[in-house]
Amino acid sequence: MKVILVGAGPGDEELITLKGLNAIKNADVIVYDDLIGENLLKYAKDNAELIYVGKRKGKHSHKQEEINRILVEKAKENKTVVRLKGGDSFIFGRGGEEILELKKHNIPYEVIPGITSSIAVPEVADIPLTHRKVATSFTVVTGHEAEDKDKKQVKLSELNADTIVILMGITNLKHHVAELLKNSRRNEQTPVAIITNGTKSNQKIVKGTLKNIVKKAEENDIAPPGIIVIGDVVNILE
Amino acid sequence: MKVILVGAGPGDEELITLKGLNAIKNADVIVYDDLIGENLLKYAKDNAELIYVGKRKGKHSHKQEEINRILVEKAKENKTVVRLKGGDSFIFGRGGEEILELKKHNIPYEVIPGITSSIAVPEVADIPLTHRKVATSFTVVTGHEAEDKDKKQVKLSELNADTIVILMGITNLKHHVAELLKNSRRNEQTPVAIITNGTKSNQKIVKGTLKNIVKKAEENDIAPPGIIVIGDVVNILE
Repeated sequence: MKVILVGAGPGDEELITLKGLNAIKNADVIVYDDLIGENLLKYAKDNAELIYVGKRKGKHSHKQEEINRILVEKAKENKTVVRLKGGDSFIFGRGGEEILELKKHNIPYEVIPGITSSIAVPEVADIPLTHRKVATSFTVVTGHEAEDKDKKQVKLSELNADTIVILMGITNLKHHVAELLKNSRRNEQTPVAIITNGTKSNQKIVKGTLKNIVKKAEENDIAPPGIIVIGDVVNILE
Repeated sequence: MKVILVGAGPGDEELITLKGLNAIKNADVIVYDDLIGENLLKYAKDNAELIYVGKRKGKHSHKQEEINRILVEKAKENKTVVRLKGGDSFIFGRGGEEILELKKHNIPYEVIPGITSSIAVPEVADIPLTHRKVATSFTVVTGHEAEDKDKKQVKLSELNADTIVILMGITNLKHHVAELLKNSRRNEQTPVAIITNGTKSNQKIVKGTLKNIVKKAEENDIAPPGIIVIGDVVNILE
């Protein structure tokens, strides 16, 4: 009886870790999301039970409570359960919530880190989040403000590291750009990049500034999901 | 002729990616640092040239210019060169500087992301950097302020995400704590964790608050290298 949270990485299937892959190979049950390279499931045992709990493709959207229930139920059947998520379970992956539920039921768990898209997607697009003398700090934030923030959390307009990465921010790009411009550390010339399908063969990158990125995103038919990077590192390797 | 920057991950050797491991297996030359699991080198080809350019163990400390020179020289011998670094090449790994040098010499390159210790070390120690309604942003910063920052970069005292992670910050812990307390988002009760030998079998975790962490670190003989995490997520899974 065990649940192993495995980060599958950012899209390129070869960016899973050895440890994560071994967990997939040994799992009795795999509970998986969207945003994982589905070819990873081919490594599962022949008789492994594969349970899709993602939110797209027109299928029923599973609520977190339902996912928690499945994890507990399957573990209590004395199974080794892998909870496979895109990126990393602890970076906006709600892994912490699942662990709290497992602890409540005294179910042993393990967490295997995954390559987070917040770092790897810019990286493969030739954007280092840190660069000596240019950026010695970076902040990662979700664009889903309304849903996930309450008053205690720091606002996007206040976040002030040298580099800012916004996940799930494309839908409200215009709003985010307006918020970013409220910070004295940034102005209309601050470089911005938007990357969709990052690390995959159909990766798309659009670069601009806080002044023109909304227009450029429209012109290039940028659609979610994707990652937004703000700061001087955007053009540092050009 | 190619140089591949490979992130080796945070310490646990099984946390390298499949793609990174394949690059190691195919490399003619491997230029490697400290902080990589040295067992990874056993995957190298029998005739691969292994070049150590780390900074510890009493050996000669290689300057970045010297590492750049080795990468260029070996690539120009028409070799496939792997530059193997701890963590991720673009998170305080100076990967960007190496790429700029490769570009100057028209040497093809590739970057394979690695699991960054900034996220994975807290994760394996049961600290999620984000957690719904608690932390919807995190900032990673280096503790090497004097060496790497100039006036343009944001100061530690100003950084204000919900969670802060300081890499290479143990030597100057007392100073960092004083800086962190200057920020109105934090106070003496703000939770802090210090993790050394993260993800490895000899992992050590000390938890406290901004008020008592310096004392606790001394009492527990905490020594660098290590990672400091600040924010409410430190105790969220307890």
